[in-house]
Amino acid sequence: MSKGADTRDRIVANALRVASVEGLEGITLGRLASEVGLSKSGLFAHFESKEQLQLAVIQAATDAFTDVVVRPALAAPRGEPRVRALFERWLAWEEHSSVPGGCVFMHLAVELDDQPGPARDALVVSQKWWLDAIAKATSLAVSVGDFRAEVHGELFAFQMFGILMACHHAKRLLRDPAASDRARQAFDALVASARRPR
Amino acid sequence: MSKGADTRDRIVANALRVASVEGLEGITLGRLASEVGLSKSGLFAHFESKEQLQLAVIQAATDAFTDVVVRPALAAPRGEPRVRALFERWLAWEEHSSVPGGCVFMHLAVELDDQPGPARDALVVSQKWWLDAIAKATSLAVSVGDFRAEVHGELFAFQMFGILMACHHAKRLLRDPAASDRARQAFDALVASARRPR
Repeated sequence: MSKGADTRDRIVANALRVASVEGLEGITLGRLASEVGLSKSGLFAHFESKEQLQLAVIQAATDAFTDVVVRPALAAPRGEPRVRALFERWLAWEEHSSVPGGCVFMHLAVELDDQPGPARDALVVSQKWWLDAIAKATSLAVSVGDFRAEVHGELFAFQMFGILMACHHAKRLLRDPAASDRARQAFDALVASARRPR
Repeated sequence: MSKGADTRDRIVANALRVASVEGLEGITLGRLASEVGLSKSGLFAHFESKEQLQLAVIQAATDAFTDVVVRPALAAPRGEPRVRALFERWLAWEEHSSVPGGCVFMHLAVELDDQPGPARDALVVSQKWWLDAIAKATSLAVSVGDFRAEVHGELFAFQMFGILMACHHAKRLLRDPAASDRARQAFDALVASARRPR
């Protein structure tokens, strides 16, 4: 990797950590430059605008999420095991070192929902992709006979996503030590309701 | 109502509308003063600090939530009807004119979760009170025989809260016109799973 690409990666990784705690608004170019050991103009050599940096953060978050959640889960067998793996990997992501404030998408979703622009558009694409990954794994669980034929992938994705959001809320805002356990109970109940009787 | 109290209420109502769209960070005293037709020092006569104003916004949000959601729902009969009323009233709150950006608590929860201080503390109290209201209504639904004895109020509250969060996300970020319908489907499934067979 070239030195330029390495520096760019360090800038973005740093900005992603900040964003998970304080949102994109928390990223100031001056602070970021000093934390990465660059001058402000050195930083500008990598990113021409704050918007460009925000887009890079959303891309880096999506890449990290793919590595930590989606790719390992896709290695699980089709059916209920893969749906469960998506859930369990998300719990691991919520604690991942790349996002010290927990799932960065939870922060960005609320921060950007009323802010039209390229960052919002990129976030929507990324979030739809994640919901779609859950819906597809659910439909596959129907295909292989783990889930009942009436189980609807998009509705299941909505329900599972709600459990993840409530988990983030209980963990990050309420500091509830039972947050992950409760999320697992809710997820187990959801899966049980979807399961085909044998 | 005295003129001073009226002005104070207008300031806070305005700040609440801003907070529902942009969060507490979006409230700047200069902008607020000009929108309410006061000088900055006139505004400071009502609020000595930004923190005091933030606390007033959280209190106003909780009061509005009580009026729009909790009080009307408590007028519904104990049991499943009251649990349903809490859910349906929340959907109405999400569209209420006092919060043009949708449920303001969704925004504040993410904004404040890593910011220790009085505003975060007040928000936690308010959110726990709401979760507790759902849990109590659920336990009552068990008492009156609508829900099965094994239904756990706190877990039900977590599950219902997740559906509300996913609804907010689908509506505000994804602009999904089916958001409320999907939330109702998810809620109906949750209630059906809790219902005592007759």
